[in-house]
Amino acid sequence: MKANTSENKSVQKIEIIKVKDNKSFFYADDISVEEPLEIRVSYRTEDRKESKNISVTMRTPGNDNELAVGFLFTEGIISGGEQVKSVNHSQAECSRNRENIVIVELADGFIPQLMKADRNFYTTSSCGVCGKGSIESIRTVTSFQNLKKSHQKVTFETLYQLPEKLQSFQNNFSATGGIHASGIFDLEGNLLALREDVGRHNALDKLIGHALFTHMLPLQQKILVLSGRASFELIQKAAMAGISIVAAIGAPSSLAVDLAKEFDITLLGFLRDNRFNIYHKSSSLEIIQK
Amino acid sequence: MKANTSENKSVQKIEIIKVKDNKSFFYADDISVEEPLEIRVSYRTEDRKESKNISVTMRTPGNDNELAVGFLFTEGIISGGEQVKSVNHSQAECSRNRENIVIVELADGFIPQLMKADRNFYTTSSCGVCGKGSIESIRTVTSFQNLKKSHQKVTFETLYQLPEKLQSFQNNFSATGGIHASGIFDLEGNLLALREDVGRHNALDKLIGHALFTHMLPLQQKILVLSGRASFELIQKAAMAGISIVAAIGAPSSLAVDLAKEFDITLLGFLRDNRFNIYHKSSSLEIIQK
Repeated sequence: MKANTSENKSVQKIEIIKVKDNKSFFYADDISVEEPLEIRVSYRTEDRKESKNISVTMRTPGNDNELAVGFLFTEGIISGGEQVKSVNHSQAECSRNRENIVIVELADGFIPQLMKADRNFYTTSSCGVCGKGSIESIRTVTSFQNLKKSHQKVTFETLYQLPEKLQSFQNNFSATGGIHASGIFDLEGNLLALREDVGRHNALDKLIGHALFTHMLPLQQKILVLSGRASFELIQKAAMAGISIVAAIGAPSSLAVDLAKEFDITLLGFLRDNRFNIYHKSSSLEIIQK
Repeated sequence: MKANTSENKSVQKIEIIKVKDNKSFFYADDISVEEPLEIRVSYRTEDRKESKNISVTMRTPGNDNELAVGFLFTEGIISGGEQVKSVNHSQAECSRNRENIVIVELADGFIPQLMKADRNFYTTSSCGVCGKGSIESIRTVTSFQNLKKSHQKVTFETLYQLPEKLQSFQNNFSATGGIHASGIFDLEGNLLALREDVGRHNALDKLIGHALFTHMLPLQQKILVLSGRASFELIQKAAMAGISIVAAIGAPSSLAVDLAKEFDITLLGFLRDNRFNIYHKSSSLEIIQK
């Protein structure tokens, strides 16, 4: 089994604004890179060479060959290293992402049972990247992209208090210590709705489903608070619902920051202990003393 | 839009063993329930009624109707509540999971653009539940299921030290504060390999891919340490690699515990500050004073 490695960077430096006790300063911060990786297998049948897209996953670049082969193994598509002939990176047409395809060439005579694999996979919340190749594609399905953003004001104090409020309303967290939450607050910091789930994307889908049922969409002049990290898929869902401010208690990924800038969604991270980081701030939002 | 709600429980009580400072006691603990939910849409074309499976997601039961409709909305399959006629639970053939299908009936005359949706979805790490309906199905693809487990011993002290060791070897965590890690340790607590990723399932796939490349499989007599929570999919991947002990710094889900019992994988959770919870302990493992 040959593996040609070509590792991308897994950490990206960006300029952010750090806020602590109402004071803010510029800071060169490291964030985790998140980029799509397409895993393909190629193999030879009696009469021709086949190439199949097996999965697209949002991953941190680095050890991509291990990821591809590990995925094929844990999905039961291969059962040992001897079934792998070579592993190589390839570049997608999409210019934005370098080397975001890994092709696993299977050993001569080994034909994978992909039907079994197909049934094994399940789709999770979407990314919009798969099969389309760029963030721009999301624009095509966001109904609220051209909404004019009205001027908004929120105080530092209101922001600082959001994590505690979120947790105090989490029914299941205190019991289990292991569940994600998404909450919608107004600009005065009042909780409007909260949903929990073991899957962070599900918690947000439940919340947006609730907003749809109760005619709250688009969620402008509202703050979405995430109990954990902010990934690309969460910002994509927030964009779909017209949310203008996202505050995560954890870290954002690189692609989450890119998408927030793209949609002019204010994105705060590490909101805890009277501090937060600003990864993007819409010009329509003013954060004030009181 | 009508929504008939039928909520399942989102928290489950199970008997565990709590360990603190080498002392252990039985405890009735609450864990977050994780179960598959299949989201289907039904709609009427000119000549017949169609029903399509859109997604299977591992979710915490509760607010399933919101989850289904929110998912369809954030995926761009529907663009408003007026496109939904009714939302109802249905029971799958699989007896184990109650009411694990939600059928969203679309409004008369509305035909969803599912081709667009298909391209939007991406598969993530599999669960084995989708399309098959039971945990038993995973057995069919696990090569190491009948491996005889040899007797293993590990000290409390070794276990207590794992989280700190894991974090000290995480290259990217200290920089970004937001990345998952999976690490493999031997029974003396020596780190053998560690991988990081924004997606916890990717970190584990990278680690298992590494183990495959370096002929380490099956990972018996080893401890898998997870930086976060233990979900079903992580235990499924661990089972595929023949891992016999999983220690998570966060909480496990209900389905993770079920699967650990099914495969006789020792599952520890909340491993931090000289304490941990035992959700399942293989009889082949002995935890000793020193």
